[in-house]
Amino acid sequence: MKTLVIVAHPQLANSSTESFLKAAADNENNVMWHELKTPFDISQEQELLKSATRIIFQFPLYWYSAPAILKQWLDEVWNSQLTSSYLLKGRELGIVTTVAHSASAFQPGASQGYTIAEILRPYQALAHAMEMKYLPPLPIYQFAQQSEEERQLLFIHYQQYLTLDKFLHFSDQTQWFIDHLNVKIAQESDLLQQAKLEQLLALLQDQQEELDDLHTSIGWLREKEDD
Amino acid sequence: MKTLVIVAHPQLANSSTESFLKAAADNENNVMWHELKTPFDISQEQELLKSATRIIFQFPLYWYSAPAILKQWLDEVWNSQLTSSYLLKGRELGIVTTVAHSASAFQPGASQGYTIAEILRPYQALAHAMEMKYLPPLPIYQFAQQSEEERQLLFIHYQQYLTLDKFLHFSDQTQWFIDHLNVKIAQESDLLQQAKLEQLLALLQDQQEELDDLHTSIGWLREKEDD
Repeated sequence: MKTLVIVAHPQLANSSTESFLKAAADNENNVMWHELKTPFDISQEQELLKSATRIIFQFPLYWYSAPAILKQWLDEVWNSQLTSSYLLKGRELGIVTTVAHSASAFQPGASQGYTIAEILRPYQALAHAMEMKYLPPLPIYQFAQQSEEERQLLFIHYQQYLTLDKFLHFSDQTQWFIDHLNVKIAQESDLLQQAKLEQLLALLQDQQEELDDLHTSIGWLREKEDD
Repeated sequence: MKTLVIVAHPQLANSSTESFLKAAADNENNVMWHELKTPFDISQEQELLKSATRIIFQFPLYWYSAPAILKQWLDEVWNSQLTSSYLLKGRELGIVTTVAHSASAFQPGASQGYTIAEILRPYQALAHAMEMKYLPPLPIYQFAQQSEEERQLLFIHYQQYLTLDKFLHFSDQTQWFIDHLNVKIAQESDLLQQAKLEQLLALLQDQQEELDDLHTSIGWLREKEDD
């Protein structure tokens, strides 16, 4: 899988959120980080799109939509050459959007009145028209107010959003941690640290096996119920 | 009532729809036709907004949203100076959007998959945030394929959308026709034509009176039912 992150931000250099996300993305293989700048080289942009299997639109939510530069890029780059032959069919479209309000504000009766799912509907409609698979969006609420622990979780969750095949499945998430731990162990030069990481790895693998057993048991119980 | 039509179209000169709508708008008093051009004079744009009680966003629907220039205008002009003091509170926001697909394509299971109401939700959320009144949008489907009769209806419907206080009420629509006929009669120099228009006016007024009588009767019947 190859992931293309289309970053649309009018003041990228000043955005602490974007530099945080960039650090997370840089850690991953098969992720292309692409910051939008005008004027666009249309055929080059189209080549980039064609090289990716997962395409992420990443932007701060301004007035319930992406900044103008993303729309300009869509209006210019997603022309009939790209779209008429359904070149993007079957690929995935994900949305990572940073939001100034709290999650609870986005509901009927609250200050923002509509859910994030509703507000992002035009992108879902775009995915639908292209026969792309629309991924559940990843909204990042009030990054500035997040604690260190919340940020660590976000760091991992964002990496999984970019790279995990099925990032909503728990067992895939565990496998993702196991893979990342294996890489970290190989890179670690301090033997004591390495031993600690190996202990953690063993623990995760044990838990994974136990979970697999439980799944098998539950499946067996369900089959009996159906009898 | 003062209406401000914000026209966002990247190729305005080539748009037969926009010139058709402009002819309809030009016929009306208290309608300001404002074509967006970059760079924006932000304070001048804000003064325009403050002078209007009904604000219309008018644009062709590209990729389920307005062309980039409208978003750029929102991002730049709707800054905290305009929005923090709720200067637009209580004013109306209407959407006139020209659409390449047919009306029936915009529903679950059809080619576009989502309704126009859903696709325009970000503008509704904007109106909600500003405490503006969101008007039912006026989508114009496949203008190029419309018959002469459909266009005549659209011409009137669009004028009513810009100027009628309650454009969904039938009795207000009749009054609107009576007012417009009166103006036409005063302007008409051909006496024969003038007599014909006066006949039409008398007919409309008769019908309006008959309708008023019917409404009274229905109201009276309903009251009796409630007894």
